Amino acid sequence: MRALYELGAAELAPMLERREVSAEQLARACLERIAEREPVVHAFAHMDPERALAGARALDRAAARGPLHALPVGVKDIIDTFDYPTEHGSPIYAGNRPAADAPCVALARAAGALALGKTVTTEFATFPPGPTTNPHNPAHTPGGSSSGSAAAVADRMLPLAFGTQTGGSIIRPAAFCGIVGYKPSFGLLPRVGVKAISDSLDTVGVFARSVEDAALFAAALSRREALRIPRELRAPRVGLCLTPQWPAAQPETQKLFEDIGGHLARSGARVTRVALPPEFDALADLHATIWDFEIARCLADEHLRHRDRLREPLRGQLARGWAVSADAYDAAQRTVRSCRHKLADALRDCDALVVPAAPGEAPAGLGSTGDSVFNRMWTLLHAPCVCVPVGRGPLGLPLAVQVVGRIGEDARALACAHWIQLSEARRF
Amino acid sequence: MRALYELGAAELAPMLERREVSAEQLARACLERIAEREPVVHAFAHMDPERALAGARALDRAAARGPLHALPVGVKDIIDTFDYPTEHGSPIYAGNRPAADAPCVALARAAGALALGKTVTTEFATFPPGPTTNPHNPAHTPGGSSSGSAAAVADRMLPLAFGTQTGGSIIRPAAFCGIVGYKPSFGLLPRVGVKAISDSLDTVGVFARSVEDAALFAAALSRREALRIPRELRAPRVGLCLTPQWPAAQPETQKLFEDIGGHLARSGARVTRVALPPEFDALADLHATIWDFEIARCLADEHLRHRDRLREPLRGQLARGWAVSADAYDAAQRTVRSCRHKLADALRDCDALVVPAAPGEAPAGLGSTGDSVFNRMWTLLHAPCVCVPVGRGPLGLPLAVQVVGRIGEDARALACAHWIQLSEARRF
Repeated sequence: MRALYELGAAELAPMLERREVSAEQLARACLERIAEREPVVHAFAHMDPERALAGARALDRAAARGPLHALPVGVKDIIDTFDYPTEHGSPIYAGNRPAADAPCVALARAAGALALGKTVTTEFATFPPGPTTNPHNPAHTPGGSSSGSAAAVADRMLPLAFGTQTGGSIIRPAAFCGIVGYKPSFGLLPRVGVKAISDSLDTVGVFARSVEDAALFAAALSRREALRIPRELRAPRVGLCLTPQWPAAQPETQKLFEDIGGHLARSGARVTRVALPPEFDALADLHATIWDFEIARCLADEHLRHRDRLREPLRGQLARGWAVSADAYDAAQRTVRSCRHKLADALRDCDALVVPAAPGEAPAGLGSTGDSVFNRMWTLLHAPCVCVPVGRGPLGLPLAVQVVGRIGEDARALACAHWIQLSEARRF
Repeated sequence: MRALYELGAAELAPMLERREVSAEQLARACLERIAEREPVVHAFAHMDPERALAGARALDRAAARGPLHALPVGVKDIIDTFDYPTEHGSPIYAGNRPAADAPCVALARAAGALALGKTVTTEFATFPPGPTTNPHNPAHTPGGSSSGSAAAVADRMLPLAFGTQTGGSIIRPAAFCGIVGYKPSFGLLPRVGVKAISDSLDTVGVFARSVEDAALFAAALSRREALRIPRELRAPRVGLCLTPQWPAAQPETQKLFEDIGGHLARSGARVTRVALPPEFDALADLHATIWDFEIARCLADEHLRHRDRLREPLRGQLARGWAVSADAYDAAQRTVRSCRHKLADALRDCDALVVPAAPGEAPAGLGSTGDSVFNRMWTLLHAPCVCVPVGRGPLGLPLAVQVVGRIGEDARALACAHWIQLSEARRF
């Protein structure tokens, strides 16, 4: 029998509902796993076992039981919580105590979740990394910026966690850690109360170990039952797309994409090749224009009053942002809007695209969280993205694909990702 | 000779630049005006004269001088400031001390402005009013939710102030107080660090006593020189539009719109009548659907943990918001997106529309801040709006028109509004 901490949200929910497992039992199982593994993984910025157990006991006493009843959730440390500090991965915010929960956390608690602790983020969810290691090999990065959330879920410390993505901060760490990351369509989950680094890109999303769990979590948070994975699923129509960033794919990703079309087709999917319109070639660069411009404004106070306490390459990015002209920014936004309209056309014959999630396995070393090259375009387009783990690379570290849907059609993208996860699970 | 506190930003800027006036002199003039008038107007939530003077002296000593050098600015109390509390007009946030300036405030300071104090907001920038009175008649509302900012600028306590608009919270108080309010295109000024009540509607804007001053302020904040009013202006092409909300216009507004087309045409403007497409009729109701849905999420923590400390009608609005289905919300957003595309068509032959700014003069009483019926549609459409004061009503209180431009064409809307303000100034 598997330990409680190994079970996913969709397995746990009915057990908790039937009171076969108490909130306290589940919390203890997770806390024991954390105690065992945290000295290697460093997933948490703040976590208080006594507070977690008190919260679990309160849930056991509660009359009302929400759809996330007693499920332990990790909260990335750029997301405000009233009961834990929120330090944004920056010494400027050491000991910072927000007055309120961010809405996404309040919604999780309203649905019965146990906010178990704050997870490590890179500095302001940008590049300078935190101490978190990859649970599959502590000499490798877990990816970022949602490093702690991805590592904690991958290492079975928690069944669910919150992440945020402005470039590739959910999909990349999910890929490197071998779990599911779901970046919804822009705005689907409220991002109020999250430290902003780009008003037109910042997106709240979730981590879980199965697409079904991620969908359950997002459905409860957004009160959108339609996001849940249906019991009966037809085989999807999948558009295989190498994207303009394909030259960044490493051999293990090249091999993955040589094979996966055949595998999915043999499982019953209808697989076509999709090429994106030429206008999309510019998007990766336009992401930089838009993000740099916006982050300089978002962190204006930190830049003005605390410049010495910002690390590189963030400081350089802010300087670049102040050098982007309003005209260049406006032109970039116009191109992006045009591409958003064309995305539905590119997806015409498919339920979702399958594209690379990351260049390859998690790179060695903790000095960088890796490259978001395969993620930025989709964040910019506001499209729903789901990272689905698919086998291992030459170093034995996880590989993954990214399922991309039409803007606003998250349920369809999740269903397709779930089908792919089941289909691939039969293979490995 | 007019007192210093009576001068506008564009008049003061060159005097400060040439050091004919020091920052301290200007701050003292404003503080004396505030000391005289604040007992009646109640524009400020937090204001410390000693801190303001210390800030002014620091500006006098500073080597670098920005485009807003030494200009005193009021900051609506839902906008974070590191040096003053930020209480959101709610007892839940009594004494709340944000760790950082909101970017819009940091940008103002970076340009040399003196953030002189926090101005009264309604509760969370919604309907329950604060203590502010209308400077033209203290028995009348100043409008809201940016009540203190509008009243302080109208009463010549400050040349400039920040407001925010989700429904009609800039344009309506500007109209009731007889000043210029400028709600930019959505996202033009950063709204990070502002207490969110609707992620898809909240917009930061400014108050001033002339369009030229408002444009100077917004240009400095956004580093968009193009927003400044050009020296040479041709007469605009104006679309007079009564809007689907016309039945809400009171007799003084009906009279205003009977006359203004002729006045503007005699001044040289090309005036046409513009009717909006029938699809736009639904927008006022869709604003409620979208705002209610989003505010329930934005204030989820307050609703969960502090329900007893929320006033009506806010509590009722949150309950309504939880009852809006995701499907209804999604459908509303689809219609709004379609109308945003059609707005440029409706403006085809004009530089901007001229529409009512408010039903009429500021209503009597301080129990309500009046009706945002003529503002909500334009906030929803993300279009730039400028309130231009135009004469007086039967009670001797200010009237105004609202100039609405194409989304993203703020410079053109401001230039048109400036031309109208000059043209109307010659009449009264």
